[in-house]
Amino acid sequence: MRLITTLEDLRQTRDGWSRQGRTIGLLPTMGYLHAGHLSHARTARAENDIVVASVFVNPTQFGPNEDLARYPRDLPRDTALLADAGVDAIFAPTADAMYPAGFATWVEPAGPLTERLEAARRPGHFRGVATVVAKLLLLVGPTRAYFGQKDAQQVAVVRRLIADLNLPVELRVGPTIREPDGLAMSSRNVYLTGDARPAATALYRALTAGRAAFDAAPSSADAVREAMRSVIAAEPLATLDYADVCDPATCAPLITSEAPALLALAARIGSTRLIDNFLLRADGSWDIGQFTDARHAE
Amino acid sequence: MRLITTLEDLRQTRDGWSRQGRTIGLLPTMGYLHAGHLSHARTARAENDIVVASVFVNPTQFGPNEDLARYPRDLPRDTALLADAGVDAIFAPTADAMYPAGFATWVEPAGPLTERLEAARRPGHFRGVATVVAKLLLLVGPTRAYFGQKDAQQVAVVRRLIADLNLPVELRVGPTIREPDGLAMSSRNVYLTGDARPAATALYRALTAGRAAFDAAPSSADAVREAMRSVIAAEPLATLDYADVCDPATCAPLITSEAPALLALAARIGSTRLIDNFLLRADGSWDIGQFTDARHAE
Repeated sequence: MRLITTLEDLRQTRDGWSRQGRTIGLLPTMGYLHAGHLSHARTARAENDIVVASVFVNPTQFGPNEDLARYPRDLPRDTALLADAGVDAIFAPTADAMYPAGFATWVEPAGPLTERLEAARRPGHFRGVATVVAKLLLLVGPTRAYFGQKDAQQVAVVRRLIADLNLPVELRVGPTIREPDGLAMSSRNVYLTGDARPAATALYRALTAGRAAFDAAPSSADAVREAMRSVIAAEPLATLDYADVCDPATCAPLITSEAPALLALAARIGSTRLIDNFLLRADGSWDIGQFTDARHAE
Repeated sequence: MRLITTLEDLRQTRDGWSRQGRTIGLLPTMGYLHAGHLSHARTARAENDIVVASVFVNPTQFGPNEDLARYPRDLPRDTALLADAGVDAIFAPTADAMYPAGFATWVEPAGPLTERLEAARRPGHFRGVATVVAKLLLLVGPTRAYFGQKDAQQVAVVRRLIADLNLPVELRVGPTIREPDGLAMSSRNVYLTGDARPAATALYRALTAGRAAFDAAPSSADAVREAMRSVIAAEPLATLDYADVCDPATCAPLITSEAPALLALAARIGSTRLIDNFLLRADGSWDIGQFTDARHAE
């Protein structure tokens, strides 16, 4: 496996692949990989001639009071895991290479999608996400790009970005991967120590309650929100940020609970902010993700 | 010559050229072509296997009080002129194809470059320019893209855009083409009727005076600004918008008059707003453009 750290090396390597007519799958990550990333990497491996994973803790998507400095990093471990998943190359640029002096062009999502949920709590977050995703897509030039459903609003932003800027790439969305007790895999789970770890299952339990309310009371999205809120309220270590039912493509709030719908949740467990979601597809099937322990899979 | 109006037709045509390994030159225009566009088209013809000109009056770069509705259009004439210049294809999409319902992703220039000159007078203008240029570059996938020095700040914005978003294209900048009396070619010159037409040479005369002041007083950029201002002030039909001396890459104002420098001017002649500039390159040579009448060329 190749470790590529400069833009020039990436461009030359990519041009070689292009000349050979290879299809390329890109898995953008911020590193500190978990089973979710590796699931997407294996999907990319199955669907493309070449698989590139980027490992870049993108500073522009962190707010001034967020966890950029302490965000977990372990490139040697990531390298071993990606090699094991059959990835061909890791692109791990420096922040200076991605944002050189004088950098002054942003990709800026606008509209309702950037006024709600994560966007409302993290000003500038999706500008940073959209900008780095556009840059990575342009640098790597992949046939397909792989994102996780765990970051549902990010998926919606990237879907619009690809359509709006006419980027010639296919978006592939992989399932949320869960611990056996339902906690969604996240690099930030490393922050969950002591009692915080079992308390963090409150998000999954709240979504499960929301799904039950959705199926039981198909006319009221507020009943679904309330079902989610009450589970979080019952967990002493948890503080609700939002519990919403919205359109998966626009994140606009739903009034009646009809498919397609996104049940989206953010909460703090102690000082760790976590997000999670269940997706009800237009065909009426639920996408709640997959469990690492087969006994818990639905 | 092909006339392409749909994104799908463009993509298929472009993919065919790519498979054949052809180099592609793109000339983005808003149509109503003049000798400036045709000069750039001939340069593109000489430098590429395939030349594509886009003809699209981009609504997102016009402000609410600007001249979008009355901006001159004549596609049959443009088609004949481009065919004569050896262009292979015209891409003339509809506004709905470029900005479909739900469009919500902008390419947004930031920093000093978008706080001065045109950017200060035309809020949102360069967001519209950067967005449509990024889209056209991604749709056409050219080897080289051709812009005119007449729109000096646009050139600076596009140069940053290409670098910042890692677009794999070479920027080529063609000279300003002038009428024999110095008026810079512009599609908006069609608005200049009666006395406005001779009065419009005030911009060229002001830049010429500014250049003389620059060469005579190499320590004061303010003396250059004042020289330009006084020429505009002496023309009864002209109203100065700005007369500035700035860094060509950042548009930051200069204090001392040192190369490289951009002498940039905007003025209204009656109700028609015009811009023009002279560029002093780092090597000390002036780029004041080229004249359609060889007797006036410098």
